[in-house]
Amino acid sequence: MTDSSTNMRLKLPIVCFILEIILIILFGVLVEYDHDTDAKLFNGKTPNPHAHNDYENDFYYRYPSFQDVHVMIFIGFGFLMTFLQRYGFSSVGFNFLIAAFSLQWATLMQGFFHGLHNGKIAIGVESMINADFCTGSVLISFGAVLGKTSPIQLLIMAIFEVTLFAVNEFILLSLLLTRDAGGSMTIHTFGAYFGLMVTRVLYRPNLDKSKHKNSSVYHSDMFAMIGTIYLWMFWPSFNSAITEHGDPQHRTAMNTYYSLAACTMSTYAMSSLTAHDGKLDMVHIQNAALAGGVAAGTAGEMMLTPFGSMIVGFLAGIISVLGFKYLSPILEEKLKIQDTCGVHNLHGMPGILGAIVGAVTAAAVPKDVYGDGLKKVFPDVASGYRDTSSQGGMQALSLAITLGIALLGGLIVGFILKLPILGAPRDNACFEDNVYWEVSLTKNKLQMQNTKKNNNN
Amino acid sequence: MTDSSTNMRLKLPIVCFILEIILIILFGVLVEYDHDTDAKLFNGKTPNPHAHNDYENDFYYRYPSFQDVHVMIFIGFGFLMTFLQRYGFSSVGFNFLIAAFSLQWATLMQGFFHGLHNGKIAIGVESMINADFCTGSVLISFGAVLGKTSPIQLLIMAIFEVTLFAVNEFILLSLLLTRDAGGSMTIHTFGAYFGLMVTRVLYRPNLDKSKHKNSSVYHSDMFAMIGTIYLWMFWPSFNSAITEHGDPQHRTAMNTYYSLAACTMSTYAMSSLTAHDGKLDMVHIQNAALAGGVAAGTAGEMMLTPFGSMIVGFLAGIISVLGFKYLSPILEEKLKIQDTCGVHNLHGMPGILGAIVGAVTAAAVPKDVYGDGLKKVFPDVASGYRDTSSQGGMQALSLAITLGIALLGGLIVGFILKLPILGAPRDNACFEDNVYWEVSLTKNKLQMQNTKKNNNN
Amino acid sequence: MTDSSTNMRLKLPIVCFILEIILIILFGVLVEYDHDTDAKLFNGKTPNPHAHNDYENDFYYRYPSFQDVHVMIFIGFGFLMTFLQRYGFSSVGFNFLIAAFSLQWATLMQGFFHGLHNGKIAIGVESMINADFCTGSVLISFGAVLGKTSPIQLLIMAIFEVTLFAVNEFILLSLLLTRDAGGSMTIHTFGAYFGLMVTRVLYRPNLDKSKHKNSSVYHSDMFAMIGTIYLWMFWPSFNSAITEHGDPQHRTAMNTYYSLAACTMSTYAMSSLTAHDGKLDMVHIQNAALAGGVAAGTAGEMMLTPFGSMIVGFLAGIISVLGFKYLSPILEEKLKIQDTCGVHNLHGMPGILGAIVGAVTAAAVPKDVYGDGLKKVFPDVASGYRDTSSQGGMQALSLAITLGIALLGGLIVGFILKLPILGAPRDNACFEDNVYWEVSLTKNKLQMQNTKKNNNN
Repeated sequence: MTDSSTNMRLKLPIVCFILEIILIILFGVLVEYDHDTDAKLFNGKTPNPHAHNDYENDFYYRYPSFQDVHVMIFIGFGFLMTFLQRYGFSSVGFNFLIAAFSLQWATLMQGFFHGLHNGKIAIGVESMINADFCTGSVLISFGAVLGKTSPIQLLIMAIFEVTLFAVNEFILLSLLLTRDAGGSMTIHTFGAYFGLMVTRVLYRPNLDKSKHKNSSVYHSDMFAMIGTIYLWMFWPSFNSAITEHGDPQHRTAMNTYYSLAACTMSTYAMSSLTAHDGKLDMVHIQNAALAGGVAAGTAGEMMLTPFGSMIVGFLAGIISVLGFKYLSPILEEKLKIQDTCGVHNLHGMPGILGAIVGAVTAAAVPKDVYGDGLKKVFPDVASGYRDTSSQGGMQALSLAITLGIALLGGLIVGFILKLPILGAPRDNACFEDNVYWEVSLTKNKLQMQNTKKNNNN
Repeated sequence: MTDSSTNMRLKLPIVCFILEIILIILFGVLVEYDHDTDAKLFNGKTPNPHAHNDYENDFYYRYPSFQDVHVMIFIGFGFLMTFLQRYGFSSVGFNFLIAAFSLQWATLMQGFFHGLHNGKIAIGVESMINADFCTGSVLISFGAVLGKTSPIQLLIMAIFEVTLFAVNEFILLSLLLTRDAGGSMTIHTFGAYFGLMVTRVLYRPNLDKSKHKNSSVYHSDMFAMIGTIYLWMFWPSFNSAITEHGDPQHRTAMNTYYSLAACTMSTYAMSSLTAHDGKLDMVHIQNAALAGGVAAGTAGEMMLTPFGSMIVGFLAGIISVLGFKYLSPILEEKLKIQDTCGVHNLHGMPGILGAIVGAVTAAAVPKDVYGDGLKKVFPDVASGYRDTSSQGGMQALSLAITLGIALLGGLIVGFILKLPILGAPRDNACFEDNVYWEVSLTKNKLQMQNTKKNNNN
Repeated sequence: MTDSSTNMRLKLPIVCFILEIILIILFGVLVEYDHDTDAKLFNGKTPNPHAHNDYENDFYYRYPSFQDVHVMIFIGFGFLMTFLQRYGFSSVGFNFLIAAFSLQWATLMQGFFHGLHNGKIAIGVESMINADFCTGSVLISFGAVLGKTSPIQLLIMAIFEVTLFAVNEFILLSLLLTRDAGGSMTIHTFGAYFGLMVTRVLYRPNLDKSKHKNSSVYHSDMFAMIGTIYLWMFWPSFNSAITEHGDPQHRTAMNTYYSLAACTMSTYAMSSLTAHDGKLDMVHIQNAALAGGVAAGTAGEMMLTPFGSMIVGFLAGIISVLGFKYLSPILEEKLKIQDTCGVHNLHGMPGILGAIVGAVTAAAVPKDVYGDGLKKVFPDVASGYRDTSSQGGMQALSLAITLGIALLGGLIVGFILKLPILGAPRDNACFEDNVYWEVSLTKNKLQMQNTKKNNNN
């Protein structure tokens, strides 16, 4: 089932080794501990006067959230994609590989754009969370092309996507002073539309040759539910992981909690309503129930209130199921976008919804509601640099920029990934682990053997 | 396999939409941020003088525990019930649905009974934990009726059970000033006996028509072990999640840790001892090994000592295995209680044990053992309002009240759930996902296809 | 399939009950709450003057790390070993049993060697982490003998291994003042070589009678990936769990994070490079990708820098894959070491690498790099008791001592485990759950039934 082009024996080791050696060298030259991870800086009195008590080390504010985010990246995304019947090794395994690469590369790219200090990138738990966030964006794009790409294509995609993510994030957060703590724009909208454009460029007219493998079986749906539930549970930690300490972190987690709960209710309702016999569809439950987390990504830290959060989550679930049911088939037929995991429905549209909710909330909630807490959420409004309506305007502009960079970036990267040497699977070998993985004795073969043996008894 | 009564196409969407819209409206009218989640209150000096430092925000004391509890509710309970061979979608999926509903409804009900401030319910991480706790109680009852109810029946059950949970909790904690941090009574005893009474009322004399599906297969037992192990690991967080800050949280987690370890040892011993060939039974390991957590739910925060905790856990494991082996068959045959998951053995009897241990520990340990820490565990004893023996008496009385409300509530709710319109599965279609879920291409059918295809090669 | 020797009906209950009763008695006599878990001590002013604020309770510094370690022990190790097609119940279930026993026994043994205070062992979250660590060592040894031992043999092994672990740990940490926060030596090297020697003594020349079960199937590899990913994600918490508060905990977690990421890259490269058709091997991904965590276990808390950590992880991945590919077959054929999980490649060699890196880093990094933080990492260098090079020398000596105690201990314990009464499985019944577990209706049998039934339709 392997032909020469998909044989990874030399290609993959070379790419991995070169990339990792470059990463190591760049880390050696550019990276240093920050004030909270450096033994001298943290314990010396002068450079870091505000954190002389151990409990004020940023580790204790953010590490539990980091670990939750980490679980979402490696278990959540990894297992969510195992719904395909014969692509579990690749779903978890390539997710693992490109995430391990991306988090290192993201440390450098984000550190570079967030500003070098004395030519160095200072890192700690907050940069680790940001690196995981950027990685999440790559994994969303992976969902769009799932089953149709080689690990080398995925690594190449990650190189470019991480870079463009850092550029877009820099424009939004540092130039436009936009707020997007949970990444409705920077992570979800960006990752989704980047991936959708890549899969559009990689359009395979003969993909129906692999159609029988592009579906789930009972146990693969169970594995996918592990991914879903972990993403759902830890989304409050995701959205709150890099907000300011204190009330914003607390409030963001709670807003997201209620948004997700409301989203789950509307997802079940819509899944049953849109089925001809009222039966629930695992695709909706696995994906749309998460849209409430995406849609609370920007406004979650604001004074959205649980009431507002629930409305947002409620709408996100409805939009997402409708997207799976009615929009995805149109995108595939008319626009030739083969979106394996339906990332447009989980990350694309809910991401845009989240960006809009963020812009409206930023503009509509009066400053007085925040009191002295305004500086933690909108420091530039609190400082008098801008008013709430111009903050809202910048939030809206940020969505447009994100869409533009994602689509243009995806277009270019898609063409790069078309290089035949990168080892994409043939049309009749998509959604199949066997192309890139040793699947020594397949389950079915084994069962046949057992059946034979048992019959002989 | 679907008949009109189990068709959820209109019923389920209508119920979900109406419930969620009511929830959203009530949240809009009644719910507000508390001192630690509101931007103005947390950062303003006057209303919250004790928490002007970010690290004193309750988020940092409780959010890691909350996330552990959250995992228990959605992964723990959800996967524990996937042991049935053809009911994995429903186990995880209905667990997901009714938990998402219950946590919202519980926020309102508990907030209402815990006391409105200026007509508002103020919420934060502690109320989130309490909402998850109340949800846990509903999920215990779900375990008793697993495989025999429609999602609509489960939502209706949740509406009433959450309400009665809040009433019982109010009587115990606010009126009787009982201590029950880990919920041996409020969560486990209540949820178990409520569910047992519901399943009694819903008794199906012809359930043996679905008997061949009311068992596990190899892989479904593996999925169930994911639920078991997560419940076991995070039970220390569960019991300590809402104890007072400092030593009580620390002590409760540790007591529960040792109770569970001892319980695991006695569970393995009893499982082997009660089998005719000494082979371990997955049902015991999946369930009875957790009884030590249930039984440490009330006394865990007290000066029970690791020694006392281990004795409690040791006994809980023995009782639980004996229950599975000898009592459950009797309950089913004589009392017509069809308890699918055996919640009587995991939550019922160990919950009662935990309540008794709590009463005895409260009465027997002298005040002097707690020193200045007494006010964190028994504030009403520390204040001189009552002595330790009357505290113990109230603890015992609380168990009786809990049993009464649970049994009476379950009786009434059971009859409500008998309404034919609610779409319960027929006797020969219990324990079967296919009734309520799209199970597109079943595993066995697929394997036959593969076998055919392979034979043709 | 069961013969009298493997019948556990009396043996296992007797062993479990006796062990647990002894544990309970010893806890009653020897164990007490420490300053942070005792109500009187924590709230009284005198004995614990430094922790009068709740947020300074050690619980808040370490409990999230503890829970991550706990997940590694019970889910990580447990599911990593489920890769065998018919040994999932035993992998997770025996892991559960011996871990539950070991953590109690380790509390006593480590408490005894770490020093009694007034004849008592004072315990809290740090001792819980240490108990879990010691348990991890036993589980590593379990990996070496996986599939070839009875639960009684495993419990006997745990009794001795925990004891010897505590002796070795005492020599290293208390006598030689060695640093080994993440246990490259005390946990990984010790557990691996102990287990390798046990499996050597238990060598089965006729193990190929069970050869057809000593391999994975598709779904068992998926379950194993759950273990792998959890171990990978939480290793930063493992290595940092008992370092000093503040920067060391923060730095250790971050160093481990980058070490693991680099290790994953080199693992994928090597797995593809060493396969004749370039296909990735699940055995490598499941195991070698974790070697970076092992190898950062000693030096992780030091000023190793992310750059250094990545080099270490990169090398660990290469060594580990090479071990699986080339060394393990030699060990089995020439040295008669049947290492089921390949613990030599995941814990043995990377543990030694980690010990060497620790010795070199301790000796080579100047004191000045740590500034005032030196006392948190090398208190004996900071106090002037020794210089960095003698610290490095002691680190190297510790590796030799660990290897010696592990090999000698494993030798003796191996011979003890050969007692026929302990119920080891026959040569043709290894790697088979059915020997010790009720496997009511096996999957294959069920499928045959279904096939028959379907064929009759």
